[in-house]
Amino acid sequence: MSIIECIPNISEGRRQQVIAGIADGLRAVPGVRVLDVQSDAAHHRSVLTFAGDAAAVKQAVLELYALAIPAIDLRTHKGEHPRLGAVDVCPFVPIEGVTMADCVTLAREVGAEVAARFNLPVYLYEEAAATPARRNLEDIRRGEFEGLSAKMPLPEWAPDFGPTMPHASAGATVIGARMPLIAYNVNLATDRLDVAKKIATAIRMSSGGFRCVKALGLALGDRGIVQVSMNLTNYEKTPIFRVFEVVKREAARYGVNVLESEIVGLVPSAALTQAAAFYLQLEDFNSDQVLENKLRNAE
Amino acid sequence: MSIIECIPNISEGRRQQVIAGIADGLRAVPGVRVLDVQSDAAHHRSVLTFAGDAAAVKQAVLELYALAIPAIDLRTHKGEHPRLGAVDVCPFVPIEGVTMADCVTLAREVGAEVAARFNLPVYLYEEAAATPARRNLEDIRRGEFEGLSAKMPLPEWAPDFGPTMPHASAGATVIGARMPLIAYNVNLATDRLDVAKKIATAIRMSSGGFRCVKALGLALGDRGIVQVSMNLTNYEKTPIFRVFEVVKREAARYGVNVLESEIVGLVPSAALTQAAAFYLQLEDFNSDQVLENKLRNAE
Repeated sequence: MSIIECIPNISEGRRQQVIAGIADGLRAVPGVRVLDVQSDAAHHRSVLTFAGDAAAVKQAVLELYALAIPAIDLRTHKGEHPRLGAVDVCPFVPIEGVTMADCVTLAREVGAEVAARFNLPVYLYEEAAATPARRNLEDIRRGEFEGLSAKMPLPEWAPDFGPTMPHASAGATVIGARMPLIAYNVNLATDRLDVAKKIATAIRMSSGGFRCVKALGLALGDRGIVQVSMNLTNYEKTPIFRVFEVVKREAARYGVNVLESEIVGLVPSAALTQAAAFYLQLEDFNSDQVLENKLRNAE
Repeated sequence: MSIIECIPNISEGRRQQVIAGIADGLRAVPGVRVLDVQSDAAHHRSVLTFAGDAAAVKQAVLELYALAIPAIDLRTHKGEHPRLGAVDVCPFVPIEGVTMADCVTLAREVGAEVAARFNLPVYLYEEAAATPARRNLEDIRRGEFEGLSAKMPLPEWAPDFGPTMPHASAGATVIGARMPLIAYNVNLATDRLDVAKKIATAIRMSSGGFRCVKALGLALGDRGIVQVSMNLTNYEKTPIFRVFEVVKREAARYGVNVLESEIVGLVPSAALTQAAAFYLQLEDFNSDQVLENKLRNAE
């Protein structure tokens, strides 16, 4: 049994009927489970989360483009969030029984088919990117929908699939594969914002810290404490426990204790198992020993 | 979706055809997954492990008794392991989406039906026991099959269901509910067996330690180290992490380090999540945040 998660972001956050119609279209695909639909009117954008095996997810994504392209016109779209297409970005995430390589393959297959079927330019990003210059979504999206006509003729911005000019109403789309994001915060038993900011600087990649950590320090005013707020972009490469231990150690250097940590939203079971195995110094442990995994594999 | 695990022990460990026939009978029940079949010829006993929801597990257990009773005759059964019945013991274990109370209810329902359908005396044990004197399997089983005729007429050993005399060939049976067992060992970076034995004494219930720990100290001769070998009988009441931390602290008192720990066989996901939450100081974490749980609940 394999599970891939897919989290398309569409450029519609206001017309509930359009959003619900697209979500219903996903639900109608056998083997697909829609886990979440979040809309933001100010961003004029919705994030859909669904899961299934590769075949079901592929069918659902094609259905998504078929529904979204005629319903969303970027020429009249205005919102706070940057975007370059009706279906702005569509990542595949390996959850269970699949590898990142499987998700990269799926992203390329789906990308080729979306381009052919809808005459839509497709960029591949993150793990599915053809070149390092295309790994980051922000680089691909710079200039947004309005800048596509000028950007796409440049040789370095030729799309991975599809025409070298934007779709008139749907722009372009970015498809890829990435690890699940974990939103992880550590609260410190102090009101000293400088300590939280110094720790964030120490642990995030951009300033020399861990490869797969984004972090900032902020004040939780109502509680009189500060927080190191993080996104962990690849828990296999940069595990939660290592980040936690370094945050704790850096805080101690300022005489500050960790009050607690928190996971916001969902976390893959493996990220917690990994932490348990580290702290309990478990030798030769493998995920087949988790009773629920054994049960699922016996299905 | 709810999952109950059932681990019947039958008094047949030699005739592979009988054992396979019973396992196939379980597999034929819709919704039942057989996870493991272990036979021991010297013990003349087999342990079957299967899982499903309450209705499927109940149907499978009734099928088990229907197949085992005519096939196994205790009057000619000789093995190293103590036993009082053809189906010697049958525990129900809550795994997911069910409570211990649900498993107790199931044990009583199944017990009443087994007694009525097969005219077999049934004792309830562990969490399903009607009185504290019947919690321990060893107490119920003392005297074994051969002692039943003398033991059962005693008022304190009247069965919970069924006749007050043993079944001629199948004896009696013990049905109940318990938490999953976790076989957990901590290896110490020393060859001093006295240290492992002292730590085992400190942490096991029988000598004043944790309520849900059985432990002994033993030497791993081939590796030149010693081990604290444990059974954790209820990880909710006595969590793995607390046991590990105390073993580590007691070892330090003798100047000994923990080398590693190990889980033998299966462990419920919740027991590892619990350890991760402890060490990461996770606040307000609940199991719905585990991606796989969310996916399963969306089914």
